[in-house]
Amino acid sequence: VPLDELAIIDRFFRPLAGEGAFRLLDDAGLLEIPSGGDIVVTTDMIAKNVHFLADDPPAAIASKALRVNLSDLAAKGATPLSYVLSLGLDASVDEAWLSAFADGLRGDQQRFGITLLGGDTISVPEGPVISIAAFGIVPRGRMVHRSGGKPGDALYVSGAIGSATAGLALLKREAGPWNALLAAERETLVQCYRIPEPRTELAVTLVEFAAAAMDVSDGLVGDCDKLCAASGCSALIEAESVPLPPALTDIDEAILARLITAGDDYEILAAVPPHNEAGFRGAAEAVGVAVTRVGTLTEGSGPAQVMVDGRPLPLNSRAYVHRGSDERP
Amino acid sequence: VPLDELAIIDRFFRPLAGEGAFRLLDDAGLLEIPSGGDIVVTTDMIAKNVHFLADDPPAAIASKALRVNLSDLAAKGATPLSYVLSLGLDASVDEAWLSAFADGLRGDQQRFGITLLGGDTISVPEGPVISIAAFGIVPRGRMVHRSGGKPGDALYVSGAIGSATAGLALLKREAGPWNALLAAERETLVQCYRIPEPRTELAVTLVEFAAAAMDVSDGLVGDCDKLCAASGCSALIEAESVPLPPALTDIDEAILARLITAGDDYEILAAVPPHNEAGFRGAAEAVGVAVTRVGTLTEGSGPAQVMVDGRPLPLNSRAYVHRGSDERP
Repeated sequence: VPLDELAIIDRFFRPLAGEGAFRLLDDAGLLEIPSGGDIVVTTDMIAKNVHFLADDPPAAIASKALRVNLSDLAAKGATPLSYVLSLGLDASVDEAWLSAFADGLRGDQQRFGITLLGGDTISVPEGPVISIAAFGIVPRGRMVHRSGGKPGDALYVSGAIGSATAGLALLKREAGPWNALLAAERETLVQCYRIPEPRTELAVTLVEFAAAAMDVSDGLVGDCDKLCAASGCSALIEAESVPLPPALTDIDEAILARLITAGDDYEILAAVPPHNEAGFRGAAEAVGVAVTRVGTLTEGSGPAQVMVDGRPLPLNSRAYVHRGSDERP
Repeated sequence: VPLDELAIIDRFFRPLAGEGAFRLLDDAGLLEIPSGGDIVVTTDMIAKNVHFLADDPPAAIASKALRVNLSDLAAKGATPLSYVLSLGLDASVDEAWLSAFADGLRGDQQRFGITLLGGDTISVPEGPVISIAAFGIVPRGRMVHRSGGKPGDALYVSGAIGSATAGLALLKREAGPWNALLAAERETLVQCYRIPEPRTELAVTLVEFAAAAMDVSDGLVGDCDKLCAASGCSALIEAESVPLPPALTDIDEAILARLITAGDDYEILAAVPPHNEAGFRGAAEAVGVAVTRVGTLTEGSGPAQVMVDGRPLPLNSRAYVHRGSDERP
């Protein structure tokens, strides 16, 4: 017997509703707005076999759906407040799946201090398809844009680049240096693919010290190109300085090129003016987020120049396109 | 050659972006908030063969995706401001479809005075799947809830009930009194199914005169039950007074029962205290929205009593469940 929408809401989602959600018993929610701030809004949709795998744990799918949005908010300097959830389910979803999915949301709500403001649950021909819109607050007039960078600004990334790519390659049993890793190291990389780590703690630091920022979701190089285009400049990326997954030690240039052009990092790329670099590094360290300088914004326009040890790094592509597993790029 | 996400955004959606959307060139948008108001948020997802038919005109699908959200806002007394769009597309979608879909959004943006604040376009295994979150403003503290009704309040509906049901029956070639209609009358009913008419003009009237309201999307009777549950009372619906599609004249009790328990009306059900009835009717007339008294909130609890000419009206079900066309209820 398929669950009906009201039963699903009642059992699994009502317990997640917070202030302004009216226990999900109304047509809409009220967005509570702390004084003195601007409201930042983002939305992302994820689908089976495109952004997650059919047998990924439901709690991880829920976390990913939420966290890709929180990553966007963090990149804009916004602290998350609440979110709305649209959930498209097919007949393969059962109570156990829904219960685990809700558990994933609950854990992240507690961790990030947010609540569910509203939602919709529908039947779809093939699912799950999950769309979330998330709301955050940034001090008035201080949203961090992609467009604020200037030539001479230092380029920083948070965390490591390429962990999710290695994790997905492991899940797909692709050959690569990740196969030489210990089981625990492999599991860590798989977790990076399944459950990104939004850099919410870095939001306030970005507001204070960054001239421009974005989240890295479709490959560092291609996303850097987007920041350059928005800021009206170009960039030099020094690929040897890009922080990679620490367990991966034996990386040739082809793998390096792949890791810095593939998706699902959900790290922050920030342009930091030279006079702010010391402050940025200190503030990031204080909130426990590793940041690494990977290059510089440069005069001119067009895609970033990607160098390794002073030579151009050959790249097959610059950005990652999320597609269904049965589609050819 | 499948279109890539950036090309789709550039060609079809960037022209729809408004204030705070930063030309869809950033990770997120800024929600502009007029002073003195509360922000109402709602989200609805629609999918092929569940909420629309595969060969429905793309502009109509876009309008439906948007308008089901605007209907929720109107029912809360909120005037729409902006929206975010998540669009899941499969390989069957081409440029002509996207162009027509964007045209549908553009027309409604102009009509309802709203703009696109952000979005996401992804591949899905089977689409289209469309999720919209819409934002509206209501005077501070004045959102109209489902829960404000009291015994003795008059129950009103806007427009007519059952037009979309008759339109869907025509599209599905089901036998019924709609088959006797003229071609133009049939087309009107089909349009009611494809493109609902959100009662945005009624929002201010609801704030001023209604004690409770909701939008009728899953059948008048079942939705009235929800308003009763939220308000802690019951109701009497006088089915003979429910406004039906004017062209449908020869309606027996079975069809009447179906029309008032089926979905996609997107009309407003409002509970109006007796001392506000004259004001409510006058204000609704002033903004050109027909409203009709269909019953009364009553003491007690539990589902509404549905009578016709003083006798109970037999009902096979009370509410409509949106399912895929290949599923059995």
